[in-house]
Amino acid sequence: MKIYENIYLDENIQEPKYIQLYEALKSLIEERSIRPNDKMPTIRGLAKKLNVNTVTVVNAYKLLEQKGYIYTKVGSGTFVADKLNNNKINFFSENTFESSDEESQDNEKLINFSTLTPGKELFPVKDFKAVLDEVLERDGADAFTYIDAQGYKPLRKSVSDYLKECGIDSDFSNISIISGAQQGIDLVSKVLIEFNDSVVVESPTYTGAAAIFKNRGANIIEVSIREDGIDINELEEVLKKQNVKLIYVMPNFQNPTGITYSIDKKLALINLAQKYNAFILEDDFLTEINFNKKGVVPLKALDFCDRVIYIKSFSKIFMPGIRLAVLVSPFNISRNMILAKQNTDISSSGLLQRAFDLYIREGLWDKYIKDLNNIYQNRYKKMRDELIKIGDFSFEEPHGGIHFWVKSNLNPSILVYEAKKNGVLIAPGRAFYLDNRECEFFRISFAQVNENEIIKGIDKIREIFVK
Amino acid sequence: MKIYENIYLDENIQEPKYIQLYEALKSLIEERSIRPNDKMPTIRGLAKKLNVNTVTVVNAYKLLEQKGYIYTKVGSGTFVADKLNNNKINFFSENTFESSDEESQDNEKLINFSTLTPGKELFPVKDFKAVLDEVLERDGADAFTYIDAQGYKPLRKSVSDYLKECGIDSDFSNISIISGAQQGIDLVSKVLIEFNDSVVVESPTYTGAAAIFKNRGANIIEVSIREDGIDINELEEVLKKQNVKLIYVMPNFQNPTGITYSIDKKLALINLAQKYNAFILEDDFLTEINFNKKGVVPLKALDFCDRVIYIKSFSKIFMPGIRLAVLVSPFNISRNMILAKQNTDISSSGLLQRAFDLYIREGLWDKYIKDLNNIYQNRYKKMRDELIKIGDFSFEEPHGGIHFWVKSNLNPSILVYEAKKNGVLIAPGRAFYLDNRECEFFRISFAQVNENEIIKGIDKIREIFVK
Repeated sequence: MKIYENIYLDENIQEPKYIQLYEALKSLIEERSIRPNDKMPTIRGLAKKLNVNTVTVVNAYKLLEQKGYIYTKVGSGTFVADKLNNNKINFFSENTFESSDEESQDNEKLINFSTLTPGKELFPVKDFKAVLDEVLERDGADAFTYIDAQGYKPLRKSVSDYLKECGIDSDFSNISIISGAQQGIDLVSKVLIEFNDSVVVESPTYTGAAAIFKNRGANIIEVSIREDGIDINELEEVLKKQNVKLIYVMPNFQNPTGITYSIDKKLALINLAQKYNAFILEDDFLTEINFNKKGVVPLKALDFCDRVIYIKSFSKIFMPGIRLAVLVSPFNISRNMILAKQNTDISSSGLLQRAFDLYIREGLWDKYIKDLNNIYQNRYKKMRDELIKIGDFSFEEPHGGIHFWVKSNLNPSILVYEAKKNGVLIAPGRAFYLDNRECEFFRISFAQVNENEIIKGIDKIREIFVK
Repeated sequence: MKIYENIYLDENIQEPKYIQLYEALKSLIEERSIRPNDKMPTIRGLAKKLNVNTVTVVNAYKLLEQKGYIYTKVGSGTFVADKLNNNKINFFSENTFESSDEESQDNEKLINFSTLTPGKELFPVKDFKAVLDEVLERDGADAFTYIDAQGYKPLRKSVSDYLKECGIDSDFSNISIISGAQQGIDLVSKVLIEFNDSVVVESPTYTGAAAIFKNRGANIIEVSIREDGIDINELEEVLKKQNVKLIYVMPNFQNPTGITYSIDKKLALINLAQKYNAFILEDDFLTEINFNKKGVVPLKALDFCDRVIYIKSFSKIFMPGIRLAVLVSPFNISRNMILAKQNTDISSSGLLQRAFDLYIREGLWDKYIKDLNNIYQNRYKKMRDELIKIGDFSFEEPHGGIHFWVKSNLNPSILVYEAKKNGVLIAPGRAFYLDNRECEFFRISFAQVNENEIIKGIDKIREIFVK
């Protein structure tokens, strides 16, 4: 609170006090004396400190929020917005780590362990350009017409074949092509969730999903993750008491914990969903990145009762910019899912669907995933070995995926702050809890960092402990 | 009801009656004795006719719905689904006319006056392929990264310049790039509409928008369209009584009526929104297609109080497959709009945004719109002249846009049916009312039909009256 002591509000000038206070706080934010995502003082606290009416503070805060300097997180308080990157969303979540192209230029000198998005050097640009050209030659104007809301049929067929390799035996008539996993979560919410319905999420989880459920007016219940998956007893207690419509899970290489559900847990989860008449939303974004771990099958592959809505994202294992994902729907809601897609954005880009289809058909996808696995496995080993060397850290090995969930003796919020000062970005554990609670963990990913930079980056983290 | 008289349910076999009834109705649908979008008998009516319990009919209908043979429209009844085109949405609306590529092959021999989507022969495929190639050469992997949720900054800047030409003076910081107008309507709903809020739509209107509002739990109120725009008195009566959050309008070449609001009406509408603290959602899809009509300015150009959310669609004047549209947001909700976009699908395709930006910057867009205006003006004149020749029709000239709203002495539902038999598709007026009510009008568009085909198609319509 020290920084706020120097604020002086003049009784004797015409300008209202709340405007004066607004100007003073704005200056503090602009000169970075208070920094993006710092918590602002409470209204009562600041009013007392400055010896003004709380209404003055309320009005100043309102104005700051209107102008985009601060944002309010329900239940948590008021925080400084990242006004310089003024296109960013106004709450602290996983998505904050997905650096857009423009923003990543600012971060170029930083070593970015905080994002799960693959680095640009991994993109198969040349191959994809070739299939794009081929599609434009082959299809001409057809490539720019509306596509069926459900997606380009040949792509649905090639995806159906690919999913069979992953153990999911789904007819292409149950497969939809959508504009990324985030849209999938949005569509499922539209079809299943009504105001005041209950939704279970893992704790910790991808809060970008929870934000969608919340926007639908859902009541969100967190259920803990254990070493082998969601806590089944805790889940059943919730299901007994509440009428839960949807259970949102990432059963393989979970985000952020990296945990893979055991087969037993997977089956138990499906059984519970069946027993309590809930749907499961499986967000599969990393099943392919597997370094010989057993049991890494999608939940959908075990879904004997057609309760699992399966979303396969390509943003974390391919190029996020193509904005395509796959949704496999239980039969009895598949028509409604297509209707929701049509109402949401008519259909996803036909051009990119045609190109991606050709990319799969020409065997380029299989080859790409194989190469990516090799690259990621080398990075994985390097990062694991480097992390082990830091005595203040401990973690379970995920044996796949692209990130570690690391427990730190040093408070991770401080660690994140100090690491950034040293030029390294990591994701604080609290970003994966709905209430932003304090948490002993952080998430560190090698998606955008090669082996040399892994060594360099973790060295810089180590320096924090040496100081 | 005659057709249902022959249904025979056997008391003496093991198969439950509702299964027998299901099978019988399924056969009628499959052999097209009852046709897609035909209304099914009421439950009570059919139960009485067949002398069975209503539960039997309920269960048979449930099964038919589950299997996709029929669909229920709340408040309207039960209808036969278009099972053959099983990827289609399950309610009768504007979107039903947006033929996807696959489906249009079935309709190839038909003359399609029912869609507003431009024909493929108008697409500037060669030019767009050239800018795509140029972007891939220029930007490489950057073309496939995440883009800011708000959109690719250079595109926002070139769109801002373009909008200035249309009278909208908006800084690029208030402009978002979205995946089509439909998504824009969805995003606005997420930001502004909560369960039980009221939304005003024009009557008749684009029911695809109303479907989104409904999905948000909104209470939808229709206000009539007059010759010079929405009925201001009727609107004010509604605004007085209800707490209306949003007014959804298409002020230029309205869909389906083709009406353009007078400048007075436009100003009156903005004034009412200001007085009653509502937002206006302006869906602008045809302002560019103007044959010397005066006063065709976007509402947003007159928006003195920052109440208009402006969506500019390119699907009806460019290539629908690129799935890009522009949203100009009032300042005080612009952050929330970006957040909603991020939560909905992270961002729109960066590749297509980059290509579209280059397309505009190289002057190709301006040239394309000029050419399109010439082509459409010729078609317009031809269609007008041909329609005038049919004495049973009457209409107001829109002097722009791509469609006519025609009053017919012959019931348009019959007309649509007979026209289809003759190989011509037109859109029945009832498709533009929320309750699918009987209506004396139909919508006829030349978006996909050249001058020769216009003559041929309208000739075939004329034959219906001669018979």
